[in-house]
Amino acid sequence: MFDFRPVGYVIGLLLVALGATMLIPWAVDIAWDTGGGGTFAVSAAITILFGGSLALASANSRTPGLNLQQAFLLTVMSWLALPVFAALPFWFGAPQATYTDAFFEAMSGMTTTGSTVFSNLDELPMGTLLWRGMMQWFGGVGIIVVAMAFLPTLKVGGMQLFRSEGFDTLGKVLPRAGEIAGSISIIYLVLTVACILAYTLVGMEFFDALVLSLTTISTGGFTNTDASFGAFQGAPEYVASMFMLLASLPFIRYVQMMRGSSQPLFRDSQVRAFLVTALSLILLMTFYRMLYNGEGSEESFREALFNVTSILSGTGYISVDYQLWGPFPVVLFFMLGLVGGCAGSTCCSIKIFRFQLLFISIKQQIKRIHSPHGIFAARYAGRPVGDDVMSSVMAFFVMFMLTLGVLSVILTLLGLDFITAVSGAATALANVGPGLGPEIGPSGNFGGLSDPVKWVLSAAMLLGRLELISVYILFTVGFWRG
Amino acid sequence: MFDFRPVGYVIGLLLVALGATMLIPWAVDIAWDTGGGGTFAVSAAITILFGGSLALASANSRTPGLNLQQAFLLTVMSWLALPVFAALPFWFGAPQATYTDAFFEAMSGMTTTGSTVFSNLDELPMGTLLWRGMMQWFGGVGIIVVAMAFLPTLKVGGMQLFRSEGFDTLGKVLPRAGEIAGSISIIYLVLTVACILAYTLVGMEFFDALVLSLTTISTGGFTNTDASFGAFQGAPEYVASMFMLLASLPFIRYVQMMRGSSQPLFRDSQVRAFLVTALSLILLMTFYRMLYNGEGSEESFREALFNVTSILSGTGYISVDYQLWGPFPVVLFFMLGLVGGCAGSTCCSIKIFRFQLLFISIKQQIKRIHSPHGIFAARYAGRPVGDDVMSSVMAFFVMFMLTLGVLSVILTLLGLDFITAVSGAATALANVGPGLGPEIGPSGNFGGLSDPVKWVLSAAMLLGRLELISVYILFTVGFWRG
Repeated sequence: MFDFRPVGYVIGLLLVALGATMLIPWAVDIAWDTGGGGTFAVSAAITILFGGSLALASANSRTPGLNLQQAFLLTVMSWLALPVFAALPFWFGAPQATYTDAFFEAMSGMTTTGSTVFSNLDELPMGTLLWRGMMQWFGGVGIIVVAMAFLPTLKVGGMQLFRSEGFDTLGKVLPRAGEIAGSISIIYLVLTVACILAYTLVGMEFFDALVLSLTTISTGGFTNTDASFGAFQGAPEYVASMFMLLASLPFIRYVQMMRGSSQPLFRDSQVRAFLVTALSLILLMTFYRMLYNGEGSEESFREALFNVTSILSGTGYISVDYQLWGPFPVVLFFMLGLVGGCAGSTCCSIKIFRFQLLFISIKQQIKRIHSPHGIFAARYAGRPVGDDVMSSVMAFFVMFMLTLGVLSVILTLLGLDFITAVSGAATALANVGPGLGPEIGPSGNFGGLSDPVKWVLSAAMLLGRLELISVYILFTVGFWRG
Repeated sequence: MFDFRPVGYVIGLLLVALGATMLIPWAVDIAWDTGGGGTFAVSAAITILFGGSLALASANSRTPGLNLQQAFLLTVMSWLALPVFAALPFWFGAPQATYTDAFFEAMSGMTTTGSTVFSNLDELPMGTLLWRGMMQWFGGVGIIVVAMAFLPTLKVGGMQLFRSEGFDTLGKVLPRAGEIAGSISIIYLVLTVACILAYTLVGMEFFDALVLSLTTISTGGFTNTDASFGAFQGAPEYVASMFMLLASLPFIRYVQMMRGSSQPLFRDSQVRAFLVTALSLILLMTFYRMLYNGEGSEESFREALFNVTSILSGTGYISVDYQLWGPFPVVLFFMLGLVGGCAGSTCCSIKIFRFQLLFISIKQQIKRIHSPHGIFAARYAGRPVGDDVMSSVMAFFVMFMLTLGVLSVILTLLGLDFITAVSGAATALANVGPGLGPEIGPSGNFGGLSDPVKWVLSAAMLLGRLELISVYILFTVGFWRG
């Protein structure tokens, strides 16, 4: 029999913690009397009550630690259970959203996607805006812990490549997760505080600086106005770009730097590949803007820097509607979203290390054709890469593309047009934020979509956030047979 | 030093043969006095003269047979040289096209793509229309020979899977190619004659039946009117669908049937997968049409059967503008084009056996997660599949997707909008024919595109037809070092 108790126990505790954090926006609403009312208190009570009961009911499991099945189930169920409850304040209170909208917003938050269904954001109570930022912030740190503690051991999509890094003491999963969470949280907090300071230094009001820092460091993308980052053109764009780039790098490197290793960041092949990719694309877009749109060089560079970084890192802030720049930027931004940042950061999507490995694999194929009897061991970052890692990376890529195709078809069956369906599926699966086209594009909003579409997109966000296979595996017979 | 002579010799002979076949449309133009003039005679003379000189100059090579490099170079150069000369009649004569247009049409013909830049087709001389059909017919049989004789030995994109089939006597490449060409040509001719008879039986005029048979059996897609297959709605659609399906199956199975093996066709895993896929999609589309568009059941079935088969097989005939059916068919038809038929047929695109192997690989990944220490040998059609085959199939898929992405970006830089760029790149790379959108969609034409766009699309057709890697490998340093 499958023992759900260890899973229920951890999820119960996570819900209690989530409920407790709801008291922060509650306090904010009370302190500044911004009209939020007791929404957050009620939501907190329900969440803590439910989580506490679940934890109590699931305690006393005879098996200490988690086995493979339980680790997968915990990963998926926690990313499902937290949005279910995180949605409550939006449902009970301020935007008075339907539960579908509230859940979409919470899933978009916890997965750090950043697509929003709410409009007139600046009329929402401060507590609600803060809660949107907090969800992304928790989701961001949560995914780093999962990506570093769980996925490598679970061999998901080539993440086993990072098994021997830093924390590979091969202990039980949960204690390691705790250790990782500790070190990472400090870095995460330091970066967030630095970001708040930087935003206020360039003239942002404190509340905006706070919420935007929460969504910058988590590469989430929620903002406090319908104009996204359009309200902060100029210096804040540079600050945001810098911190989005920092948040796209593997956090383990920061931990190592903190512990005294010299320059581990720039020796990391993934980091170099990401920065070179980002820089090339930013320069390409700058020159395109100067040549085709005749914009000034500072504006061209700044807008290219900000928007390319935002989409590449999967943050999803927008400072201008880049759809007006012409068809080249439109297609490029679509593809940027499918690239993503480094593994072990808050970024989602296919990720830069997988592209590196895919190119290595193609090179190997070509070498094998040149010399049919030669043996070519793939090497990544100086170390040999096993065939199992290679094939799981390639299988991930295939799964990603096929899932994108199937989601697009489903979305058209639900009535979306070609561009909205394909870009909607892509932006949800890659946890980016904006899609393309007039409805869900940079100047649009997901609020006008039908309920079934919102549920499909929510499912896509979850799938993408957990590297697809963690979710798919729950639907296989072999998984439940042990 | 690289010895070009064996390559030059074979290409020379192929050009002489091509030139000789130009005398057929010349004879047709003279016999029916359709206004073609001496265009074809002049083109034939130039082609034969050039080809003959090349063959003579390259003869007396000391090395008999071809080595690996020469086999690749021959494959790519022949698919480049033949369109260069096959384009001449369009340039000198009837449509008085620019050389860019003439070359595009010839490349679209020889690669069996079927995108056309010419309009007012019914005003063209019969010889010209016949030549368009003949190009596709030659291109079709040519690719079967290449796919069976060259690609498996060259280990291109997992085609080595078919090495042990039928003709694997491991002799020299050229004699084997000759043997294969012989057996295949008989089947190809029999199918074509059967198709002509069937088309005339359902009321088509002989000339239409002839040209359409040439482009049906080659899954090419050129027709004699701007309305594509719209002029032949009804019974001819059923005939065309049957023969397009037959032409999508591996021709080696027909050879085996001809030699007395019983039922090799339906024991072939690839054939079964293709037919099940086709049938499911046809039924799905039929029900969609009945439900959403409220069409009668016969019309719904016939239009679904014909258009799904046409796009899935990469033929590219169109009987109605399916873009008017709604967004679901638009996305589905886009993806259908990326599936394709069986290896060893005239179909292009990713092909059904690769999808089968990709799914097998994903299953393996999941099994490996279930039981980390188990060993799971992949099996396809009852036989074990080597890791090298698996990884070359996956590398092919990755290359296909990345190439599609890069081509789309280039096309937008040349001024195309999102849908035209992405669907144009896809339809050219997969050798399908029609794209999406108002310009190159089912009711459109490629004639209005700019010259640079036409050259990029021509290159894409060549790339796709030769399974990408045959072309890419020529651009690697290692290839020329031997």
